[in-house]
Amino acid sequence: MRIAYQGERGAYSEAAALRFNASADLLPRETFEAVFVAVEQGAATHGILPIENTIGGTIHENYDLLLQHELPIVGEVKQPVVHNLLALAGTTHDMLRRVYSHPQGLRQCERFLRTLNVEIVATYDTAGSAKMIQDGQLRDTGAIASERAAEVFDLSILEAGVQDFAGNTTRFVLIGREATPLGPADKTTIVFTVPNTAGALFKALSVFALRDIDLTKLESRPIPERPFEYLFYADLSATREDLPCARALMHLAEFAPLLRTLGSYPRWQEPESESADS
Amino acid sequence: MRIAYQGERGAYSEAAALRFNASADLLPRETFEAVFVAVEQGAATHGILPIENTIGGTIHENYDLLLQHELPIVGEVKQPVVHNLLALAGTTHDMLRRVYSHPQGLRQCERFLRTLNVEIVATYDTAGSAKMIQDGQLRDTGAIASERAAEVFDLSILEAGVQDFAGNTTRFVLIGREATPLGPADKTTIVFTVPNTAGALFKALSVFALRDIDLTKLESRPIPERPFEYLFYADLSATREDLPCARALMHLAEFAPLLRTLGSYPRWQEPESESADS
Repeated sequence: MRIAYQGERGAYSEAAALRFNASADLLPRETFEAVFVAVEQGAATHGILPIENTIGGTIHENYDLLLQHELPIVGEVKQPVVHNLLALAGTTHDMLRRVYSHPQGLRQCERFLRTLNVEIVATYDTAGSAKMIQDGQLRDTGAIASERAAEVFDLSILEAGVQDFAGNTTRFVLIGREATPLGPADKTTIVFTVPNTAGALFKALSVFALRDIDLTKLESRPIPERPFEYLFYADLSATREDLPCARALMHLAEFAPLLRTLGSYPRWQEPESESADS
Repeated sequence: MRIAYQGERGAYSEAAALRFNASADLLPRETFEAVFVAVEQGAATHGILPIENTIGGTIHENYDLLLQHELPIVGEVKQPVVHNLLALAGTTHDMLRRVYSHPQGLRQCERFLRTLNVEIVATYDTAGSAKMIQDGQLRDTGAIASERAAEVFDLSILEAGVQDFAGNTTRFVLIGREATPLGPADKTTIVFTVPNTAGALFKALSVFALRDIDLTKLESRPIPERPFEYLFYADLSATREDLPCARALMHLAEFAPLLRTLGSYPRWQEPESESADS
């Protein structure tokens, strides 16, 4: 298994890929788009993409790319986001003049950063910030990044868990070239639109409810160019190989102007040791 | 009308407040939390808060604050997000060494910024970045901010419309101390949970569908500390003063563990001149 991810070595996406499969080969890419291209062209067998975060919400950009590229979702992994303040060994709080991180990381640590009284510099990547400190031997600079980035770039954790909100978790999906789920599938992600008529969404949901298929995510998104039209993202607690689910999807296709199944795959199971802790 | 908003003068929230009421008094505040406090303590009659963006999705933090503070939503306004590269008059592209903006603004112009080959510095505010350039007479620095920020801080627009995505729009809600809608109400925002049983969401939506009340937004959000439990955000195309809507809400309350009506208010109508353009 060779997984392409967006970011530098030590990025959160890399940690999520290793959480899914600790022995996977990893392929860093600069953009989400480039992750899709790596899978399409065979440089990687799979790609990993953040799709929603408990604080920031759904990452619409990656839903858009999933619709454009036609690569199926074949797995998922949930990864707690723990931001840390990293620095070279020997750097103390007093020595810090600036802190580097990706805009998203900076935003999630906004309150903490305000207490530091340093210059805040946005970079292209959380782990890339750690790399810049190690490469440049910057004794007056910190980075907001993962524990994994500290390991990869040999930095110390000056302060752990500096994110403003507890319970911050990101859900990632794994994409592949073939629609072969990475384990026994029990979950399906779909995107659909409904006609602009009263009760249309209710009718759409009835195709699942009448067949006892639960929804574990449902989200409407306005279509920018078409006011009053909405795209819906839904996760179903069934695989499209199940006859009731297959029939429900055919039923929905009878009246939904757009219906795309993005993939059927195994839902993420927390590793035993961690779920015992929490 | 005196509207508190988060950010400096020239912030996108200020522009949205003026779009709603061009003659309103405006009260800048440092954080969203401080906007709520300003309304609670009477420093402002109303507050304005971004609630969702077509690219970034729902701003969960403000839903959380709406639940905590019990201040009703009394209006809404939709504002296109147009980011610009601002600089002192006379500064050219070649002279730029760094660009300032809020992490969100930087993120929305990521591709554009990569083409500039400058240092990217995150600040607390888009408009604050414009202010820093004017105050410090920084000839080698640009800011990503609104047209309004260029006016307020007397900067030139070096390049207009530099956001990576077209059709970027933010929806803001106005909050007040009293549940008095700012016009004839025809829309209601609610938050609810459903029991963790099969078909529970379908049952919840049926209370509206069976009364011909349309949903214009529906979004599930996992509750961080409680796996498999979800909070739902919904916008209804009716006011709670309407008998069918009032009855639907009572019906939902019969089985929803949590139901909060955040407010009934008039849906945003695009100004005539603009809707004629598009």
